[in-house]
Amino acid sequence: MSIESRFVFKEKPGHGGLGLQCVALRAPEGSDVLIKIHSASICGTDLHIYKWNAWAACAYQPPFRIGHEFGGAVVDVGPGVHAIKPGDHVTAETHIACGHCHQCRLNRRHTCENLQLFSRLGFGCFSDPTLVPEAVLRVVPPDIPLELATIMEPLGVSVRAVAEARVGGARILILGSGPIGLFAILAARAYGAAHIVATDLSQYRLGLAQRMGADQVGNSSLLMGLARSSRDKFDIVIDTTGNEEAVVEALEDLRSGGHLIFASLPSHPFHLDVARHIVLREICVSGVYGRRLDETWIEVERLLRNRGAEISAVVTHRFGLADFAAAFDLAASGQSGKVVFEPAVKRLVD
Amino acid sequence: MSIESRFVFKEKPGHGGLGLQCVALRAPEGSDVLIKIHSASICGTDLHIYKWNAWAACAYQPPFRIGHEFGGAVVDVGPGVHAIKPGDHVTAETHIACGHCHQCRLNRRHTCENLQLFSRLGFGCFSDPTLVPEAVLRVVPPDIPLELATIMEPLGVSVRAVAEARVGGARILILGSGPIGLFAILAARAYGAAHIVATDLSQYRLGLAQRMGADQVGNSSLLMGLARSSRDKFDIVIDTTGNEEAVVEALEDLRSGGHLIFASLPSHPFHLDVARHIVLREICVSGVYGRRLDETWIEVERLLRNRGAEISAVVTHRFGLADFAAAFDLAASGQSGKVVFEPAVKRLVD
Amino acid sequence: MSIESRFVFKEKPGHGGLGLQCVALRAPEGSDVLIKIHSASICGTDLHIYKWNAWAACAYQPPFRIGHEFGGAVVDVGPGVHAIKPGDHVTAETHIACGHCHQCRLNRRHTCENLQLFSRLGFGCFSDPTLVPEAVLRVVPPDIPLELATIMEPLGVSVRAVAEARVGGARILILGSGPIGLFAILAARAYGAAHIVATDLSQYRLGLAQRMGADQVGNSSLLMGLARSSRDKFDIVIDTTGNEEAVVEALEDLRSGGHLIFASLPSHPFHLDVARHIVLREICVSGVYGRRLDETWIEVERLLRNRGAEISAVVTHRFGLADFAAAFDLAASGQSGKVVFEPAVKRLVD
Amino acid sequence: MSIESRFVFKEKPGHGGLGLQCVALRAPEGSDVLIKIHSASICGTDLHIYKWNAWAACAYQPPFRIGHEFGGAVVDVGPGVHAIKPGDHVTAETHIACGHCHQCRLNRRHTCENLQLFSRLGFGCFSDPTLVPEAVLRVVPPDIPLELATIMEPLGVSVRAVAEARVGGARILILGSGPIGLFAILAARAYGAAHIVATDLSQYRLGLAQRMGADQVGNSSLLMGLARSSRDKFDIVIDTTGNEEAVVEALEDLRSGGHLIFASLPSHPFHLDVARHIVLREICVSGVYGRRLDETWIEVERLLRNRGAEISAVVTHRFGLADFAAAFDLAASGQSGKVVFEPAVKRLVD
Repeated sequence: MSIESRFVFKEKPGHGGLGLQCVALRAPEGSDVLIKIHSASICGTDLHIYKWNAWAACAYQPPFRIGHEFGGAVVDVGPGVHAIKPGDHVTAETHIACGHCHQCRLNRRHTCENLQLFSRLGFGCFSDPTLVPEAVLRVVPPDIPLELATIMEPLGVSVRAVAEARVGGARILILGSGPIGLFAILAARAYGAAHIVATDLSQYRLGLAQRMGADQVGNSSLLMGLARSSRDKFDIVIDTTGNEEAVVEALEDLRSGGHLIFASLPSHPFHLDVARHIVLREICVSGVYGRRLDETWIEVERLLRNRGAEISAVVTHRFGLADFAAAFDLAASGQSGKVVFEPAVKRLVD
Repeated sequence: MSIESRFVFKEKPGHGGLGLQCVALRAPEGSDVLIKIHSASICGTDLHIYKWNAWAACAYQPPFRIGHEFGGAVVDVGPGVHAIKPGDHVTAETHIACGHCHQCRLNRRHTCENLQLFSRLGFGCFSDPTLVPEAVLRVVPPDIPLELATIMEPLGVSVRAVAEARVGGARILILGSGPIGLFAILAARAYGAAHIVATDLSQYRLGLAQRMGADQVGNSSLLMGLARSSRDKFDIVIDTTGNEEAVVEALEDLRSGGHLIFASLPSHPFHLDVARHIVLREICVSGVYGRRLDETWIEVERLLRNRGAEISAVVTHRFGLADFAAAFDLAASGQSGKVVFEPAVKRLVD
Repeated sequence: MSIESRFVFKEKPGHGGLGLQCVALRAPEGSDVLIKIHSASICGTDLHIYKWNAWAACAYQPPFRIGHEFGGAVVDVGPGVHAIKPGDHVTAETHIACGHCHQCRLNRRHTCENLQLFSRLGFGCFSDPTLVPEAVLRVVPPDIPLELATIMEPLGVSVRAVAEARVGGARILILGSGPIGLFAILAARAYGAAHIVATDLSQYRLGLAQRMGADQVGNSSLLMGLARSSRDKFDIVIDTTGNEEAVVEALEDLRSGGHLIFASLPSHPFHLDVARHIVLREICVSGVYGRRLDETWIEVERLLRNRGAEISAVVTHRFGLADFAAAFDLAASGQSGKVVFEPAVKRLVD
Repeated sequence: MSIESRFVFKEKPGHGGLGLQCVALRAPEGSDVLIKIHSASICGTDLHIYKWNAWAACAYQPPFRIGHEFGGAVVDVGPGVHAIKPGDHVTAETHIACGHCHQCRLNRRHTCENLQLFSRLGFGCFSDPTLVPEAVLRVVPPDIPLELATIMEPLGVSVRAVAEARVGGARILILGSGPIGLFAILAARAYGAAHIVATDLSQYRLGLAQRMGADQVGNSSLLMGLARSSRDKFDIVIDTTGNEEAVVEALEDLRSGGHLIFASLPSHPFHLDVARHIVLREICVSGVYGRRLDETWIEVERLLRNRGAEISAVVTHRFGLADFAAAFDLAASGQSGKVVFEPAVKRLVD
């Protein structure tokens, strides 16, 4: 017996190349979990696939199902599923660790030497329903609204950057006000940053940054170079752009002993003036790759309990599955926050 | 009344250009301290001045007195000197903090916004005696031999890098086996590194590295790329070379979640693959600039009490002042450890 | 030439025993600073002296001038004062470090081995004007209202406890809602605590705790014992009571791996079940004594810039000097937040 | 089909009460692992059971099999065993975590809310062979001699205390020179302690402490009270005795800002002078319960690779199973280091 579903596919190489196809899913076997998707969000990775940049062309081979951020309700489970049951609300931790390597033994499962990425396994979640292995799922606690479940995974990236930076009482600069930057603003406020400055090229996004509570927003080149002493410089810079020029400029306004954290994935190597910034000014540079398993999930859950309503405002647009083209166009335009599919919705919603 | 002394001068621009000159020093006034130099060592900065590279040509204007690392005994003090008295053994903390700026208030006096460098003030210590302001001096505790005093300042750089890296139980790679690298090997052993690998281009220095207790030594390009899993990779890399190629190569052998620390001052910007190393593998990159004031001094004192004899072996050559040319040639050749002047010595000592 | 002033004195041993006396102050000599007091607040130590408990009877010998928390404007300075000038707004850092001992060298000046306490030096500040040595003063930045200066020192204790506990995203229990507890609530909110519970025996103070933003308030014995799993227990407990029973009870609701911080000074030893709490549940126990010099001052300044208005609400009552008896009675009653003298005020203000 | 074995039993309540009994083990089913014991060591818990103190009388009900520290070779495995195979060398991690609770999600599996203790499950390992569940086992890497496997678990307690204390460059006092104290001495040396003082009441054990590399040994009351300044006091105290008097005495010689770590399980509450030690001197007090899973195992493995021979000297006596009474008597006497059973040995070996 099979279950009918529709999936958004990357059908062919090149910009765009998406399509909606009917797929017959098998009934859950082994550790399969069948999930009714409530909402599924477009990630930066999905946009790379949409635009088919060099990285995407290397990593993927069309046709394949796209989408890995979602929230949904469990409909049915295979006989090998033990910790999840029908009715549970679930979302995906898209990084799957082996549990046995040196990194896993160090409790660094998020940098597992044998890490598998849900997004590369071809299951897809711009669909309804979808069938995925239990290993990728996290149960969403009942006191968190299901509509927030799809943002838990990307929110986790920002929460982790903010939590590791120890922003309490600090002056913080967030480069980029896309979804990861906006989540970072919210997390930085929640974790007690004393002053938050956010940048972007898009006026629309700067407006969002302001709504999320940034104390000051603007084009980065206008903001920089104003601080004269350590007291007025930033204690922390979080980059969500991967843009070399913006980062190098920001380093000038980061105080000696400050911390630069990358929550981005730059597409090419950076020229960094090690002597000037890392040695003479003792700036520490680090990065976050995904969420700490499962400390970050705990932090995300708490944050959504306390500030779910505020955080949900990062989702600015919702689409039905049939409007996949409009949804991707909008997400790529910079004129949106987080863009979400709600498969139950039939028509374009603004 | 004046006091006769001799000083090594950088007399003119260009490679070499050193000379020994007689100088009449005034009797100590204000916060002046008159010091009989027991020994004074050649630093990497002194070699830049000797070779007159671009950086030196910008920073200095000949003629000026050279030398800032020394140990000596106080002969006389000015009326404004309170914490130091004749007979005290002293050495120089070459970084002089203002005590009032934001960095100083953060107890980061080593990155003071108004930092003055003893080496730029033109006092000089390749001489006997010398006259310097009290603010640059540290009293050497009586249980540390005076002959070790001149290495306390550079040893402090290595000790700090090692101490901040938390090497206990760690596998550590030290790039470069000049004096800073050799001190780092000794400090890493003292602080409990589980396994120490050291590199250099000079066979002579690799021999010293081995004598100092490195578990494995070699040319960096021969050593790299052998580790297959995080377990066998390094937890920590300390760079003392400023060499981009060596650092980039070493990053491949640093485990995810590892730490790269610069105890060097690279002369040009580095290409760093932020995505690969800092984000995906979550390597933390930081640098040390001088000693923490005065935590590092306390650590240096303890280390010299416990392991002074071993550490003194980093000093491989001692010269009289008149042999300044031979001393600098040797220090620049890579065929030495630390090179030291002992002004009381009249002739070349091997 | 002398300057007339009035001071509140502890005139004789026993409960109360205060009086207001005229004192002729000398014109500033050496490092003296003459200060017009804007406001001066009653500290827990002052209450111990007022009540003349065993500790106070050991530490002090009447008659002496009382009071050490204040904010004021500099009127005149002695010839040896360099960093402060007439017109500056100042307050006192009541812990005076020697700058030379092992603790000072470790940048732990707040636990200096030769620490002097301003409160024991007999200068007094429930007065107008007062004359104090430059060493105890901190200049209040111009962007902080002078009326807030008197609370910077006690606020620093709470800020430090909260900052060291790393409360970002944490569930936190604050035992006691007197001034230190109230400041801790405000600091915990500012530094991003996810959930704050505050206790006290006084309904009045619980009302203040609620106004300061505690999520839940109550008598500690009613609140405790409700959490069943680590998830619902506290991550951090900050004690401001010194009450053994309250602390021991709270330990039961502190999760494994949690942190108990004392911002109190218990008057007698505690029975602690080391096996149950510190070993089996790995709770870390630490304390804060005063402010980190000067990191905590920087944090306090930032907090007052951002949230000065909220924080000023901890000051609930203001008195003229002549009403010293009413002020102390009220402060001792538990029916107040911070009680402040404003010497310029002539009559009781409610 | 069944397998014949012998086990040391606690046969009846009261002091002693041990006996050797033949047991027929089933062939491995499910996740069972059948292990030929190479060596098995007597733990402090075993001594509590032997002496039948109040704690043991509460926790256990005779008759039951005793012993939980061992090293051995896998003979056979049940069909549900996946990560272990015949021939593997194994030892036990005696703390079994659920993997799902809040503590486990925080990567604090060692304080799991549903922690099961191997020692309470009644399997026993003073025997040959034994049959245990896979969940308790750790594979011993081939480059660690099998004879060292039985000490990995207790060594882990000491390694963790030392590693968490950050002993590099520190002066450290270890209270008690039983096996945990001796392992702590070795670990403290390996991790770079600058100076190690060890105490015990037994001259025999002080002799062992000296052999393990303590710089100074003695009865604690003779050693204490000598340090006059922070410089000469201890930075770290590790308690392995659970003795209130020794700990309180040691606190006097721990510097301000120092760290007291319990690697013991005191049998009754302690009187701690919170004001004097934890607040005014800002001593941090914490404890370690077992090993971090699996970070500590990684550290133990490295330590045994580097210093296995030295560490094996903590095992001072080896017995055959039949000599259980002599072995326990000796272990309880304080006249031994670690006491080990080697079941293959038939007669008493000194």
